[in-house]
Amino acid sequence: MSKMAEYISIAHMKDHVGEEVIIKGWLYNSRSSGKLMFPEIRDGSGLVQGVVFKKDVDEEVWDTLKSLPQESALEVKGIVTSHPKKEGVFELQINAIEVMHESEPYPITPKEHGIDFLIGHRHLWLRSKRQWAIMRVRHQMISAIQDFFNKREFIRIDSPILTPAACEGTTTLFETPYFDLGKAYLSQSGQLYGEASAMAHGKIYVFGPTFRAEKSKTRRHLTEFWMVEPEMAFYDLEMTMNLAEEFIEYVVGRVLEFCKDELTILERELKPLENVVRPFPRITYDKAAALLKEKGAEFDYGNDFGAPDETAIAAEFNKPVIVHHFPADIKAFYMKRDPENPNLSLSMDILAPEGYGEIIGGAQREDSLDHLTKRLEEHHLPKESFEWYLDLRRYGSVPHAGFGLGLERTLAWICGLEHIRETAPYPRMIYRITP
Amino acid sequence: MSKMAEYISIAHMKDHVGEEVIIKGWLYNSRSSGKLMFPEIRDGSGLVQGVVFKKDVDEEVWDTLKSLPQESALEVKGIVTSHPKKEGVFELQINAIEVMHESEPYPITPKEHGIDFLIGHRHLWLRSKRQWAIMRVRHQMISAIQDFFNKREFIRIDSPILTPAACEGTTTLFETPYFDLGKAYLSQSGQLYGEASAMAHGKIYVFGPTFRAEKSKTRRHLTEFWMVEPEMAFYDLEMTMNLAEEFIEYVVGRVLEFCKDELTILERELKPLENVVRPFPRITYDKAAALLKEKGAEFDYGNDFGAPDETAIAAEFNKPVIVHHFPADIKAFYMKRDPENPNLSLSMDILAPEGYGEIIGGAQREDSLDHLTKRLEEHHLPKESFEWYLDLRRYGSVPHAGFGLGLERTLAWICGLEHIRETAPYPRMIYRITP
Repeated sequence: MSKMAEYISIAHMKDHVGEEVIIKGWLYNSRSSGKLMFPEIRDGSGLVQGVVFKKDVDEEVWDTLKSLPQESALEVKGIVTSHPKKEGVFELQINAIEVMHESEPYPITPKEHGIDFLIGHRHLWLRSKRQWAIMRVRHQMISAIQDFFNKREFIRIDSPILTPAACEGTTTLFETPYFDLGKAYLSQSGQLYGEASAMAHGKIYVFGPTFRAEKSKTRRHLTEFWMVEPEMAFYDLEMTMNLAEEFIEYVVGRVLEFCKDELTILERELKPLENVVRPFPRITYDKAAALLKEKGAEFDYGNDFGAPDETAIAAEFNKPVIVHHFPADIKAFYMKRDPENPNLSLSMDILAPEGYGEIIGGAQREDSLDHLTKRLEEHHLPKESFEWYLDLRRYGSVPHAGFGLGLERTLAWICGLEHIRETAPYPRMIYRITP
Repeated sequence: MSKMAEYISIAHMKDHVGEEVIIKGWLYNSRSSGKLMFPEIRDGSGLVQGVVFKKDVDEEVWDTLKSLPQESALEVKGIVTSHPKKEGVFELQINAIEVMHESEPYPITPKEHGIDFLIGHRHLWLRSKRQWAIMRVRHQMISAIQDFFNKREFIRIDSPILTPAACEGTTTLFETPYFDLGKAYLSQSGQLYGEASAMAHGKIYVFGPTFRAEKSKTRRHLTEFWMVEPEMAFYDLEMTMNLAEEFIEYVVGRVLEFCKDELTILERELKPLENVVRPFPRITYDKAAALLKEKGAEFDYGNDFGAPDETAIAAEFNKPVIVHHFPADIKAFYMKRDPENPNLSLSMDILAPEGYGEIIGGAQREDSLDHLTKRLEEHHLPKESFEWYLDLRRYGSVPHAGFGLGLERTLAWICGLEHIRETAPYPRMIYRITP
């Protein structure tokens, strides 16, 4: 190939209009009309339609290209042109093709495949346009998470995955033998470690994988998923709700700004995302319960909300809604009670619109040694396992609070996906551990 | 307290010289000389020396402060002043103090403690100046990793932690029962998933925790540690060495630029870090082996380098050194053989200076289906577990390469630490799973 042509990525074609360039990638699709062929090529950074005139290439090249299976690897040379009709779209007028690898007949074809087949071929399915778009939105979300907290001078702290004891019991934990020390459990949440770290660094965030061995086979559950969990010393519930609101607005805003093409591929309606602007509606648990009653839902005051309840509450608003002050009895032992009504906790959930349910759970933490000790007893948790956690209330205890956001569930909402399994590169569910 | 004073963090004092401000934090240390007291206060963002004149505060406040245990939580009000002698250092002329929580006598005192005691109190030890500094350098490194790859248009892909099979055998793997599907193993490396993802996105990086159940009790081993693993389609070994070199230069540069105070606290010699500028020396395995022989080391050609060998090789250079083209027999099955000498692999390690050993291992991957299948057989690996991985060589196989960098080992080097246990917020070793 000519020495002059520069090897570029498809995403950069817009900067090379009129130039001869080299693209390396895979044949995504191809159609031909007699003396013209339109191979679609993807290189990971994007997808481009090539244009090949039979008269411009050797007959051998033409015949090869015509019979080339989908996903074959190619190096092509050609001139970048603007699409005659679509603004911002570019084409490649191909004049040379080199086949790097002729693919075996590709198993994922344009016809319909069952979900088991697709998930079983996840390593290939990821190449499809839709899955490609979802992973790029996921990437943008992750970048936004780091940028949001870094700009606000939070320190990232990685909590351990291998932990000695459960945050809230061991029934939904994966366990592994750990040398001579008995069993270790895979972390369900980095929060307790986040609290300890906030006492060292003021404002921190934990961001890593978490695990739940729940036997839930719903469209909202993965056994392995990522959580971001900020924890802030000297924050109360109100400040935490403000931060969470700002955070969601920021993440959604970033995706809207930088993932336009991806959202188009996903056929995501943009209006519900554009609505995600502060302030979010805030209602108490009591008010949410009353709302459910008004709407005729079968809901008993004092229970936690089920998925249909969350959907019903969220349906009343056109943006995420914050529900706060849940009954203490249905919330975790470490949540602080409301000093004005000890039956309530200084807790909050944020429910996504459009039926996606809870994406954030947070609370001000119990900072009194006496109260926290009592809570451990009430929850029948082994005090000795939590001595280190109690230390945070012995040595300079301060008001503090935090929240956790589930990456995959939030991504499912932002992308408008029906099932959470598409949000993880290699999803893990109770019936799926491969590839 | 006065409505006028603004609550700020210690890190922002430089922007408030001459103003009255409020600081919330913990008593780190205190000394007094008659009518003057100098409480040192930390708030997570930094450490400030307060100045209290006995005549300026109530007698009760004076007495309280004088007997207040280390790590008690405080809210103080005062005027920010520049240190009379040290440029860039600020003090707080305190005029009001409120004790938020009087600490119990703090277990970590300025006297010497054994390492077991300190690691056992890791949740508190993190508050010490030195540990605080290490975690901030870690944070800066993590931020630099994301920024480096994002700027180069890599897509972050999270590989699964729960995996069905081992990358290279199961002897050093943690295992957990996985519902009705048998056992799952905790990932040792995201590389194979990274390769599949690079075929979808071109350039990707995996960044997450990895696990090795090795019974190694050395100063270089953790059972849980973070790895960043970029993987690039259409890259060869040479391009990968270039990228790795640029990456290390970038990360070290970021720490030098943004963690000056932290490196001072750690008493880190700066010269060896300032030397970390491209190009790095590159030598073949053969040359490294000859070097060891010259130096009189007991080393047999064909073996992998041990820690003392790595130290001896690195000692010859004043910056990281790249050793490449290792014998194929001592490297992983997925590494491509050198077409010019099939006894060698297209592999490379980067050794840190100052005796810190290997921080990067990388290679061009085997892209031929036949060769890779043969390698699996030679390594007695179950082909059926790797069918999905072989698919990458069936459907559009392309040259590709990548590397892995261990976060903690690199951090130990950058901070100049003697033992890797200080690099993780909550380190996990064969004898340590708590707190």
